[in-house]
Amino acid sequence: MEDTVIYGKNAVIEALEAGNREFNKILISQSSRADVKIEKIKELAREHGIVFQFTAMQKLNQLVPEGRHQGVIALISPVKYTDLDDFIENTGGNIVILDGVEDSHNVGAIIRTAVCAGIKGIILPSRRGVLINSTVEKTSAGAVNHISIIKVNSLTNAVQKLKENNYWVIASDHHAKDNYYDIDYSDMNFALIMGAEHAGISRSLLKLADFTVKIPMLTNFNSLNVSNAAAIILFESIRRK
Amino acid sequence: MEDTVIYGKNAVIEALEAGNREFNKILISQSSRADVKIEKIKELAREHGIVFQFTAMQKLNQLVPEGRHQGVIALISPVKYTDLDDFIENTGGNIVILDGVEDSHNVGAIIRTAVCAGIKGIILPSRRGVLINSTVEKTSAGAVNHISIIKVNSLTNAVQKLKENNYWVIASDHHAKDNYYDIDYSDMNFALIMGAEHAGISRSLLKLADFTVKIPMLTNFNSLNVSNAAAIILFESIRRK
Repeated sequence: MEDTVIYGKNAVIEALEAGNREFNKILISQSSRADVKIEKIKELAREHGIVFQFTAMQKLNQLVPEGRHQGVIALISPVKYTDLDDFIENTGGNIVILDGVEDSHNVGAIIRTAVCAGIKGIILPSRRGVLINSTVEKTSAGAVNHISIIKVNSLTNAVQKLKENNYWVIASDHHAKDNYYDIDYSDMNFALIMGAEHAGISRSLLKLADFTVKIPMLTNFNSLNVSNAAAIILFESIRRK
Repeated sequence: MEDTVIYGKNAVIEALEAGNREFNKILISQSSRADVKIEKIKELAREHGIVFQFTAMQKLNQLVPEGRHQGVIALISPVKYTDLDDFIENTGGNIVILDGVEDSHNVGAIIRTAVCAGIKGIILPSRRGVLINSTVEKTSAGAVNHISIIKVNSLTNAVQKLKENNYWVIASDHHAKDNYYDIDYSDMNFALIMGAEHAGISRSLLKLADFTVKIPMLTNFNSLNVSNAAAIILFESIRRK
């Protein structure tokens, strides 16, 4: 199981009310009847800005043996998320944005490499891709505890806010004209956007980028793993320091 | 299950005699009685240069449901291995050597990145670390089919042979004095050695290296994933081209 979970209607309500756990999201069975407790869970989730998703019973059964979950499972993060405003105000520094990266091993490896390269924050969207789970934590070799993990509901809003705060936004995109080593990273605060494994970066985000860069290959086999691509760009960004 | 397997004494003997499969290794239960068929398997394995290992019954039971394996399982590679002499004579080009890398995802990601960076061969030791299994194949995004995969019984012998054939041997080691970007990769045939996740590169190999290089970090969190480290060095090697 990748995530720590809390399951059962009462347990999830209690955890929401106690407010001392970091929720990734709440999964509710599509076939659950809308009873009072489910309504209460949805209401509390909305109140706390927690995503809830209606999911096939089969998925729930994979996470917790059949029936025991009563149609409700909360996925819990092993780390605290940071607010973007908080980060900008109190921490600052270069950022990596993951636009829907789906593989926990990739997210963990990127966070690990990002910490090695002096990156201070990782931004993850709350609805797409993976959030921090125990596989990410393990693959990161503990790096998740050495960087601010920022969860946002809208990457577009987050990027706009970063631009207003003097960040330069760099998008890694293999259609780009510029090569990743053509940029002078040393003179700016940057936010590097890495796209999902198959879909790449969404159009709306690409439009907001100040730079788009590609990694030129020596062969026609043009298919770098996203964590390796991130490593190549991030270490170029510190190579000249 | 990571590997394609052939199990049962007769099936393994038949496959060994047919000679049309690529064996990674043969696992024999420690508690198997040394009967005629087991002796025959060991003899055929020796004849074909295939590693056999005595393994706890529990490990065998994990691969194939209890009992059905009769104490013998052959792990089959999804790709053909190339002989080092063949490679040097008929293919040539830069090489990555993996000194006991244990995680299939890492091996797959390194092969994928190596192909992108124009590397022509990967050398794997037959007794330590992972060989090519279906997880490696999948993680490599098919790159295993675009590069020569060379399996050797002794990395030391392989490295010596490469040196005799005018390869420069570069070892990635975080105790190195030189930085990875201080080398001019463009003027040589090189073999880059990457070490195992925890143990790094074995001493005997380190001694044979012509260069040792490190990747300098911006923080005290000094712990790059091996596939990301390989990506950073390999793309530096082609950056100036």
